[in-house]
Amino acid sequence: MLNEQIEGTSILGNGRGSKKSDAFRAFDPRTGEPVGPDFFSASIEELNATAKLAADTRIAFGNTSGKKKAEFLRQIAANLESLGGSLVERATLETALPAARIQSERGRTCSQLRMFADLVEEGSWVDARIDHADPERAPIPKPDVRSMLRPIGPVAVFCASNFPLAFSVAGGDTASAFAAGCPVIVMAHPAHPGTAELAASAIQDAVRSCGLPEGVFSLLFSNNFDIGQALVRRPEIKAVGFTGSRKGGRALMDIAAARTEPIPVYAEMSSVNPTFILPRALKERGEQIATALHGSFTLGVGQFCTKPGLVFLPESGAIEGFTNKLAELTASTPASPLLTGRIKMNYEQSANDRRTLQRAVAAADARGFAVRAELFETTAERFLEDRELSEEVFGPATLLITSSRPEHILEIAQSMEGQLTASIFGNSADLNDHAELIAILETKVGRLIFNAYPTGVEVCHAMVHGGVYPATSDSRSTSVGTRAINRFSRLVCYQGFPQEALPDELKDTNPLVIWRLIDGTFSNGSV
Amino acid sequence: MLNEQIEGTSILGNGRGSKKSDAFRAFDPRTGEPVGPDFFSASIEELNATAKLAADTRIAFGNTSGKKKAEFLRQIAANLESLGGSLVERATLETALPAARIQSERGRTCSQLRMFADLVEEGSWVDARIDHADPERAPIPKPDVRSMLRPIGPVAVFCASNFPLAFSVAGGDTASAFAAGCPVIVMAHPAHPGTAELAASAIQDAVRSCGLPEGVFSLLFSNNFDIGQALVRRPEIKAVGFTGSRKGGRALMDIAAARTEPIPVYAEMSSVNPTFILPRALKERGEQIATALHGSFTLGVGQFCTKPGLVFLPESGAIEGFTNKLAELTASTPASPLLTGRIKMNYEQSANDRRTLQRAVAAADARGFAVRAELFETTAERFLEDRELSEEVFGPATLLITSSRPEHILEIAQSMEGQLTASIFGNSADLNDHAELIAILETKVGRLIFNAYPTGVEVCHAMVHGGVYPATSDSRSTSVGTRAINRFSRLVCYQGFPQEALPDELKDTNPLVIWRLIDGTFSNGSV
Repeated sequence: MLNEQIEGTSILGNGRGSKKSDAFRAFDPRTGEPVGPDFFSASIEELNATAKLAADTRIAFGNTSGKKKAEFLRQIAANLESLGGSLVERATLETALPAARIQSERGRTCSQLRMFADLVEEGSWVDARIDHADPERAPIPKPDVRSMLRPIGPVAVFCASNFPLAFSVAGGDTASAFAAGCPVIVMAHPAHPGTAELAASAIQDAVRSCGLPEGVFSLLFSNNFDIGQALVRRPEIKAVGFTGSRKGGRALMDIAAARTEPIPVYAEMSSVNPTFILPRALKERGEQIATALHGSFTLGVGQFCTKPGLVFLPESGAIEGFTNKLAELTASTPASPLLTGRIKMNYEQSANDRRTLQRAVAAADARGFAVRAELFETTAERFLEDRELSEEVFGPATLLITSSRPEHILEIAQSMEGQLTASIFGNSADLNDHAELIAILETKVGRLIFNAYPTGVEVCHAMVHGGVYPATSDSRSTSVGTRAINRFSRLVCYQGFPQEALPDELKDTNPLVIWRLIDGTFSNGSV
Repeated sequence: MLNEQIEGTSILGNGRGSKKSDAFRAFDPRTGEPVGPDFFSASIEELNATAKLAADTRIAFGNTSGKKKAEFLRQIAANLESLGGSLVERATLETALPAARIQSERGRTCSQLRMFADLVEEGSWVDARIDHADPERAPIPKPDVRSMLRPIGPVAVFCASNFPLAFSVAGGDTASAFAAGCPVIVMAHPAHPGTAELAASAIQDAVRSCGLPEGVFSLLFSNNFDIGQALVRRPEIKAVGFTGSRKGGRALMDIAAARTEPIPVYAEMSSVNPTFILPRALKERGEQIATALHGSFTLGVGQFCTKPGLVFLPESGAIEGFTNKLAELTASTPASPLLTGRIKMNYEQSANDRRTLQRAVAAADARGFAVRAELFETTAERFLEDRELSEEVFGPATLLITSSRPEHILEIAQSMEGQLTASIFGNSADLNDHAELIAILETKVGRLIFNAYPTGVEVCHAMVHGGVYPATSDSRSTSVGTRAINRFSRLVCYQGFPQEALPDELKDTNPLVIWRLIDGTFSNGSV
C-alpha cells in the first residue's frame, strides 16, 4: 500500500528525516503563492547516514541478477501508475503544466523504467567478452581473459526543474543507475518536492516488496545548494547525474573533479539547439516550417533543453512569409506560467536585454509566474559581433538570424559552443550543398535532425541525448535511451578464473543466452 | 625512405621544430652519462601551430574510412619494423632494457597497431544502432533515429617512461586514437627522445605515403612540464592519454577539469597490485608461487605498473618456506639500472624509508642508475597503522604482509585505494571461502587474476587495463585491448536523415557488413 500522504521529510532508506530544519514550501506557478505542506531539508548527519547506507548496499545490489532488477524497475513503474490522480494533481499544482502533459510524462517515465527492465533482463548490455587461453602459445602461454560492465557504485541524482517525472526522482538517471546495479540517492528539486516525495514512495515501496536492501534508494530534500554539494563530496558516491543550469552543472563538475577521488558527472546543462532553414526548404514550405517552429519553441512554455533557440534563415524573398507567420503565431500565444519565480526573473531579464531585437510579443498576464512568448530577430553580422546572443534563454522565446552570406553561417557554426542538437530543414539537394555545414555541426552536437525540431526526444536504443560541453559535461554519453546505462558502469576483467567463480555472463555455457564477443566474434551461443 | 638520422627537433606535421631553445640530452642508464645528440624543446608558438594543424585536420581525418585507417596503422607497423636495428639500439641505449625486451616490445607495439587496423577495417566497433520510423504511431509518429561512435577530436598523448615503444609515440594510446579517427599530438618522454623521434618518423612517413593530411600527427619535445601542460590547455585538444606518475597524471586531470571546456583525461598512474596468497595455495605450492613472484616483481627492473607490490600471506607453518625462497632469490638478483636518475632517487628513498622492514637485499652496483632488488616484510596490524606502506615503490621491491586474522585482510581490502589489478592464489575451495574478499576487490580493480601475477598484460578484446582512481583517472575505460578505442570516441545521432546523407555504417543496405543493433536486435545484415 503506497503512502499518498505527503510528509515533507527526506526518505533515508526505510526511515524518514527529521523536521528540525527550517521549513520550505512549493509554489503554485499560476498564483505565485506557496502551497503546503512544509518540507524539511536533510541535515548533514542525515546525508552522511544515507551515503553510508548506500555504500553498505553496494555489493549486494551490484550482485542482483538482471531478472531481479527488471522486477524492481517494473514494480516502480506499476507503483507510479497506481498513484493515479494524486501524482498528476500534485505535479500539476507544483509545475502548472497541464494534466495531459503530466500524464504523458508519467507514461514516458514508466516506459523508460520498463525499457531498462527489458534491457537488463535480456542482459547483453554488459558487453561480455571472452578470449580463451592458449597454453601452447610460445614464447608465453595465452591466459583466459573475460570481462564485462559492472556497476560503478552509489550514484547521486539531481532532479530537473522542467521534467518533474521523466528527469526527476524515478526518471532516466535513476532508472539507468538502478539498471546498472547502483544504489541511488536523489536530491529532490525544491520546485516540486511533493511530486518528488510521491515518486520516492513508489520506489521505496518497490525496494521493500522486492526484498532489496534499504540502502538502494534515498531521497533528500533541500532548499539550498549545501546538501547537494556535500552529497557530491561524499567518498561513497561514485557518479553524479544532473539536469539543470550550466552554472549548477559546472559547480558540481568542479566539486567532483576536486575530490580526492574524482568521479564522473553526467550533467545536461544548456543548449540553444541551432536550427538551419536551407534555401529550398524556406522557399517550398516556409510557412509550414514556421508553424512547426512556433509549436516547438513554445512547447512546455519553452522549458525544454531541446527548445530551438536560434534559427538561421537565408536572406531571400521567401523570408517574409516565414517571419510574418511566426510573428503572428507568437503574438497570439497565451501567456503561461514558468516553473519558478527565478526562471521567470531570468527569462524577463534576458528578454529585456534583447528588447531592440523584438519582432513579436504576446499579450501579458500578471498572474503568478506567467510570461509572454517572444520572437526576436537579427542579422548574422550582428550575431557574430555579440556572443551573448548565443546564450540560452530558458522560456518561450526564439531568435531568428538572417544571413545573406553562406560563409557567415559556416563561421557561426564553427565558433558555436557544444549543443544537444542541431536541426536542418531542406531537401536532398540542400543537404548536398551544405555538406561542410553538416560536417562542422557533427563535431558539436549529440543529435543532428533533418526536417524536424528537436523537442520530443524519442526514447529508444539509438537515441543520443548528449553533446559537447556546455550542452553536457561528457560528450561520450547519452542520458536518454538504453545507452544511458553505460554511464553508471565500469569495466572489470577476470583472468584465469574457474567457471564456477565467474559471473553468469562470462561462463562458457552462456546460461543467460546473451550476445558476447568470443575470441573476436559476436555470438549468443555457448562456447 | 625513413629517416634514421636523429635530428633532435620536434615534428610539426610535415615540418620540423627549431633549435632555438636550450638543448637537453638523453642518458645512458648504465653509466648515468648523457648521450648525444642534442634535443630541443618545442616553443609555445610551435605548440600552438601544431594544435591548429591538428584541428584543421580533424574533420577530414575523422571522415577517413575504416579501410584507409587500417592501411595507415599497418603502414606505421611496417615502418617501425623496417627501422630494424637502429630503433632497438637507440631504445636499448636510452633505457638500458635488454635488446630482447625491446624487440618483444616492438612486436607488441606492431601487434597493437595491426589489432586496431583489423578492428576498424571490420568496423563493428562503432556500436551502430538503427531504430526505424513508425509514421503511423499515435499520438506522435516515431522518427527514424540512428547513431554511432564518432571521433572525439585531436588527442594529446604523453609517453610513458617504462614502455619506450608500447606506451609511447606509436603505442596503444596513439594507435587507438588514430583508429577512432583522431589526430594525435605526442609529448615525447625526455628519457628516450631518440627512440621517440625514430618512432615518430615511422608515423610521419606513413601519414605521407598514405596521402593523409599532415596535421594527423605531430611530436613535441620538452624537458620540463610547461609545454605538456600548455598542450592540455589548448582548446583544440579534446582528450588526453597519459601513462606515468600519480602526481603527473593528477596535474593533467586538474588542468583538463579547469578548462573552459573540460575534457576527458585517460591517465594510468599508480598501482601496487595487491596479491593474496590463500592458505591452501601457500601450503600446496608456496615455493613455486614465491619463485614466480620474484620473476614478476623484478621483471623490467620492477618498472611495470602491474608489478605486484603488496603480497598478503596467511600466518601458517608454510610461510617460512615461501619467505625463505623469495629472500634467497631476491638476494641473488643482479643489480640493474632504472630508467632515470630521478626514478633511482625515488626508489632508494622509498627503500630507505622501509629499512626496518627489510628482509632481503641484493648486492649493490655503483654504476649509473643501477639499484638493488629488495624484499620487505611486515604484519597486517602494522600495515593497517601505516598508510604509507600502501604507496607504490617504482622499482624491484615488494612487501610481504603476514596476517593471522582474515578480518584484517578484509579491512585492508576495504580501505585500499583503486588498483589496476589484484591477484589471488588458491584452489577452488579457497576461492569459495573468500567470496567476500573477491567481491570487495571487484569494486577496486580493473582486473582480477586467479593463480597468476599481473605483469604481462595480454593484448586482446577482453583485456581491461584500467581500474579505480588512483590506478587510473577513469575506471570506465581500458588503455589496453580493443575497447581502448572507445576512449577517443563520442556518440552522434542522425534523425530523419535520407539514406544518401548517412554514414555508411548507418545505411539500410549495411555496405560495410557490420554488426548493428536494429530495432533492438543484433544483426549483421541489411534492413
